[in-house]
Amino acid sequence: MGWSGPAADALRVAPGFDLADLDTRSTPGWRGKKRAGRDATAARGRELADLQEKLYAHGRTGGDRSVLLVLQGMDTAGKGGVVRTVLGMVDPQGVALTAFGVPTPEEAAQHYLWRIRRALPAPGTLGVFDRSHYEDVLVVRVEGLVPVETWEPRFEEINAFEREVVESGTTIVKVLLAISPEEQAHRLRRRLERPHKHWKYVPEDIDARERWRDYQQAYQEVLDRTSTEHAPWHVVPADRKWFSRLAVTELVGRALEGLDLDWPVTEVDVESELARLEASEV
Amino acid sequence: MGWSGPAADALRVAPGFDLADLDTRSTPGWRGKKRAGRDATAARGRELADLQEKLYAHGRTGGDRSVLLVLQGMDTAGKGGVVRTVLGMVDPQGVALTAFGVPTPEEAAQHYLWRIRRALPAPGTLGVFDRSHYEDVLVVRVEGLVPVETWEPRFEEINAFEREVVESGTTIVKVLLAISPEEQAHRLRRRLERPHKHWKYVPEDIDARERWRDYQQAYQEVLDRTSTEHAPWHVVPADRKWFSRLAVTELVGRALEGLDLDWPVTEVDVESELARLEASEV
Repeated sequence: MGWSGPAADALRVAPGFDLADLDTRSTPGWRGKKRAGRDATAARGRELADLQEKLYAHGRTGGDRSVLLVLQGMDTAGKGGVVRTVLGMVDPQGVALTAFGVPTPEEAAQHYLWRIRRALPAPGTLGVFDRSHYEDVLVVRVEGLVPVETWEPRFEEINAFEREVVESGTTIVKVLLAISPEEQAHRLRRRLERPHKHWKYVPEDIDARERWRDYQQAYQEVLDRTSTEHAPWHVVPADRKWFSRLAVTELVGRALEGLDLDWPVTEVDVESELARLEASEV
Repeated sequence: MGWSGPAADALRVAPGFDLADLDTRSTPGWRGKKRAGRDATAARGRELADLQEKLYAHGRTGGDRSVLLVLQGMDTAGKGGVVRTVLGMVDPQGVALTAFGVPTPEEAAQHYLWRIRRALPAPGTLGVFDRSHYEDVLVVRVEGLVPVETWEPRFEEINAFEREVVESGTTIVKVLLAISPEEQAHRLRRRLERPHKHWKYVPEDIDARERWRDYQQAYQEVLDRTSTEHAPWHVVPADRKWFSRLAVTELVGRALEGLDLDWPVTEVDVESELARLEASEV
């Protein structure tokens, strides 16, 4: 039971990867079922809390490292649940979550990377993007919001942008949560059948669903063209929620471990501060 | 066991309240010990998640309500732990945590409420201030950073400011976490004795400790002059961490319940959307 090797190896997009061939109920790299998966998520979460505190301490003492989780996926793929799982296990201080929706008029008046840059995690921070700059080569393309001459050069631009982000000290973890159209129908049906979930439902969800193949094709091109050495894509099968939560927790944990941070060494003279403390009469 | 009445009644600052008389190990309003307290916190947390989702849904559908938790307390009083507890139980989306430290040069160049206004929770959001505008009548006063003519009028100004915030739809929950000087010494000692906590230690903590009475007096005046009908103060004894976490969870839960929100009613025609869903061939 457990991971058969580094989860990143099992989930990272390899050359020739074809999204159409993915079994969205599979659990690549994981040997075990739901119960063991949930236990492993909780156990990894406790380590995550420690790793994230170390990152935060590093940032508070002049360090420049940070981690950015970029989440993409079709509606109902479970981005919100993954965010709740991962961020629910760490200290809210030191975390920065940004959900990117339809651009506001202010955002739309700027370069599409403007709002992204503003949301990049500060040193010491674990940042999470719920949707991201990839929408500018996904929804924008499929819905024909801008002409091909506009979105086509963005792949290269995004690669250059991410290189810059990585070089400034941020580890980028890009994850596509992949569900099947059948699973999406099931989740949309549940949303429609439960009155207290109605607020989450917008008719545009079905509009997008009707262009499923176009979206898959757009996602495939994103994977083909922007899975770089400095910022590779991971595709996480997401029909089983317990697996997508486990997998992303693991990927973020590994990214934090990869920073190889130690607890900062204080410049304070501990002995003399202890003496001051004992002498302080209140 | 459990709360003997509304926690807010037991913890709200009553006329004539004297901080010097507070037993910081007491558990006002709560009948039970540590284990029951922790269980109650977890149980309340599950309700909190639901209430916060309702608030978020309300904000997403045009509602104007929000909740703001304002946390104050001496160093090591446990503000960070309370934040982790409360926010760890709700959806990170829909939460906005701001920690106010020493003002940056940009902030210092503005009115002291400038950075506070910028951090007010948006509609549908549960905001948390870890320290707040109250530092501008606390540390600023005790450390003599501005003259009395400057800070003295701030009490009235803060009351007027908070009234404006409340009138715009925000419920303000103000909490002072009160520890004893002995408990602070214990916690500072632990911080100094554990190398992986050194990064949290700054010698200024002991500087402030040496002015304990001045701070207590400044806090007393804050309670006397800014515990208003629209934004009352609560004093939570905080020597026992399990109690402060339980109490603040309960206060925030009650504030959310007090909004008396229902799940938004959708304008979508559910039947026809279900039909569209079934017809969507992918």
